[in-house]
Amino acid sequence: MKSVTQGDSSAPIYEGKAKRLFRQADGLIRHEFKNSATAFNGQKKAEFEGKGLLNSKMSAKLFSLLEKEGILTHFVRWEEPQSLITRELKMLPIELVVRNKVAGSLAKRLGISEGQSIEPPLVEWFLKDDAKGDPQVSEGILISLYHQKREVLKEMKTLSLKINALLREVYHEADLELVDFKLEFGIDSMMRICLGDEISPDTSRLWDVKTGEKLDKDRFRFELGDLMQGYREIFQRLEKVLEKKT
Amino acid sequence: MKSVTQGDSSAPIYEGKAKRLFRQADGLIRHEFKNSATAFNGQKKAEFEGKGLLNSKMSAKLFSLLEKEGILTHFVRWEEPQSLITRELKMLPIELVVRNKVAGSLAKRLGISEGQSIEPPLVEWFLKDDAKGDPQVSEGILISLYHQKREVLKEMKTLSLKINALLREVYHEADLELVDFKLEFGIDSMMRICLGDEISPDTSRLWDVKTGEKLDKDRFRFELGDLMQGYREIFQRLEKVLEKKT
Repeated sequence: MKSVTQGDSSAPIYEGKAKRLFRQADGLIRHEFKNSATAFNGQKKAEFEGKGLLNSKMSAKLFSLLEKEGILTHFVRWEEPQSLITRELKMLPIELVVRNKVAGSLAKRLGISEGQSIEPPLVEWFLKDDAKGDPQVSEGILISLYHQKREVLKEMKTLSLKINALLREVYHEADLELVDFKLEFGIDSMMRICLGDEISPDTSRLWDVKTGEKLDKDRFRFELGDLMQGYREIFQRLEKVLEKKT
Repeated sequence: MKSVTQGDSSAPIYEGKAKRLFRQADGLIRHEFKNSATAFNGQKKAEFEGKGLLNSKMSAKLFSLLEKEGILTHFVRWEEPQSLITRELKMLPIELVVRNKVAGSLAKRLGISEGQSIEPPLVEWFLKDDAKGDPQVSEGILISLYHQKREVLKEMKTLSLKINALLREVYHEADLELVDFKLEFGIDSMMRICLGDEISPDTSRLWDVKTGEKLDKDRFRFELGDLMQGYREIFQRLEKVLEKKT
């Protein structure tokens, strides 16, 4: 999600692969979730009826949970038919990935098999730059070449690990393994670092704890089965656990 | 350089792309420098008369300099015709690269141009694993997946930056820009972290300060001119500076 710029409520101020953003009259931002799925930096594309609805609802539920646990997020409320209403953040040009088990690009890079536990969990950094294929970077690169502040990166890392611990516990109660997930942060009007973007099976690897079945976007990436069936399984299990909590 | 195993003084205990290692009767290790140059993970190969001599001499001079500055290295003495005699280290399976300016794989990875200053200097980590193409890793990966100790990595990083500062100054006096260089460390019999391997234009990018001419192994990698001419230029300038110091 790029930082949003001036616009009106009828034309999107930003359009990404999975969402369109609108600035509302009240100054809040509406994130309209699309039904499109993309993979491999946009090379593979498809539409999935119900995906935008599910991802927006799941994001709303998990942002609410994190807020209750004292994590600052951009979330304000969910809105019909499939939108999040959020505060406006100035997004940082960085994606963080927290990893609890080896999967995806990490397995490929190191030539090791998927599923190996990573203890303590690992935080990886990527530059948000579609044109350059979101290259992986280090805190050192972000500081020395991209003008990022050491303290800001440190806080993002601490927040990501805290969010990981909270989400991992909730997913475990739903018999889901949080293998890895992507986070994006931004700065709010009070100059605080807030969690932005979304939390969904588009941005998280989630495996069934017992069978190891992949229920997330890897189903689409690697043709592992019906995408929405996996997403619905995640959502229904999660809803049951969250209902018990409230 | 892999950790060395039992052997006798006539057969090498290890043979790499650039050196053969022999254990001597006195327990020391003799590193016989080859004249071969390899690049792109061994895909490109050639022989250069005088390279082993020059690299072994340059390494000897720079290890001596670092020892004088209080850096522990494996170096004992230089020996005819083109060898280093060193103490035995148990090598760590890690390569460190210290970068002062953008070049090589970093420029490619980030899609930025060579020559940009990196301030503060950047330390990057690579797994020493030819079969896997020496994949880049992070301190987190080394700790969580490769059983390395956080304190050892921290000390290696501190030492690398100190070595970088010392070498950079000497090279500057020789009108050479130390763009980046590779380091390998090992543990000695007293369990101390020591600098091992070599310090040469095979493992360091060195550019002429004024013209920016590349004088190092990139000449061989990218056919930029006579390799040995560049190496001799580096060595002669360095020798002059070091003579003044002693």
